[in-house]
Amino acid sequence: MPHGGLEFPILQRFLCVVEARTVPANPLEATTEQKMKVEQQARDEQAQKPLPKGVVLGPDGKPCRTCTSSASWKAMMKGATTQPTKVATTPPAGATSSLQPPPDCPPDVEQLGRSSWTLLHAMTAAYPERPSLTQQMETKQFLGLFSKMYPCWVCADDFRTWMKDGNEPRVSNREDFGQWMCEAHNAVNVKLGKQSFDCKRWEERWRTGWKDGRCD
Amino acid sequence: MPHGGLEFPILQRFLCVVEARTVPANPLEATTEQKMKVEQQARDEQAQKPLPKGVVLGPDGKPCRTCTSSASWKAMMKGATTQPTKVATTPPAGATSSLQPPPDCPPDVEQLGRSSWTLLHAMTAAYPERPSLTQQMETKQFLGLFSKMYPCWVCADDFRTWMKDGNEPRVSNREDFGQWMCEAHNAVNVKLGKQSFDCKRWEERWRTGWKDGRCD
Repeated sequence: MPHGGLEFPILQRFLCVVEARTVPANPLEATTEQKMKVEQQARDEQAQKPLPKGVVLGPDGKPCRTCTSSASWKAMMKGATTQPTKVATTPPAGATSSLQPPPDCPPDVEQLGRSSWTLLHAMTAAYPERPSLTQQMETKQFLGLFSKMYPCWVCADDFRTWMKDGNEPRVSNREDFGQWMCEAHNAVNVKLGKQSFDCKRWEERWRTGWKDGRCD
Repeated sequence: MPHGGLEFPILQRFLCVVEARTVPANPLEATTEQKMKVEQQARDEQAQKPLPKGVVLGPDGKPCRTCTSSASWKAMMKGATTQPTKVATTPPAGATSSLQPPPDCPPDVEQLGRSSWTLLHAMTAAYPERPSLTQQMETKQFLGLFSKMYPCWVCADDFRTWMKDGNEPRVSNREDFGQWMCEAHNAVNVKLGKQSFDCKRWEERWRTGWKDGRCD
């Protein structure tokens, strides 16, 4: 029975008095010390609560939306309000679309990934066949900065590690750059258990369109 | 009447003989000089032929796929094979989806734009509230390089011009950076005749999700 009901007016009044003595009547009037205590409590509770599978924390210790899939995010948000201990389950095959947020919501890790690969591959498609030394240097700089600033920080870490691990950007011409980007994408595909792409066909996929003419 | 018909077999034979005398039987056997001449002819024809509205050329003088909408690209490709003089018409309202290329085709200017804004806004959402001076400097460097290397070169030109024209990136904290990016996006919206976004709500759109909870 909710204590806001009218069945026991005396009990209700008692609870209101208790509440008034322990919680400030208006949160705006809370002292700095009280606010810090409440915030610390919230952080402690968050730390103790097991997060649903797939929820990644940001460098600030809070759940990182752009590092997390919509499915895991939804599971966490549900858990925070009505099902505190429920763990995210794998969505049934074909049900992924229902787990996508509305189109005017912040992107999840998957939408961010698709968008970023579109930009990066398009950059290789527009890259000159004979780039100047400045263009080559600037492309390497861009990739270095991208790998630091990518909004999913765990993905960014992986990308930097992969590049350091014998996969320095190859930017001496369009073909090399397109191949290298395709290999970078495949490294992520492998990690995620997705199918690899045949890099011999990167140019058909990202620059010219397929030879069967379906992109024309 | 097409000259490949059987109504005038003598005429058809004559045309075949003329063709055999003017075009090498097999293009692989053409001399370098002949090939250069044919290529020059193709370039001249391309230059004389009016391009459908909206088709943008690349720095190499060829149509730039990532600078052009699917609708205009389709109009051009159709023109190149069956309707050489037809000019692209504006698609009827609501018909845009039928003009989108299959999902595994090179992105057109619109898909590239949507993808890139998703990445850029997500970067502002992940930006620290108190960035270090190095982070601020690197963010400016990234934007400078991005504005040079963006695959739609006319869009890139516009972005550089807008930044120079009193709109230097504001990167001193997350709120400033998010606001600035929203203004950059609105400058493009205005140019394209699209509705502007209320920049006071950039954080709900790109970082926290809307207050009505529909993104949770």
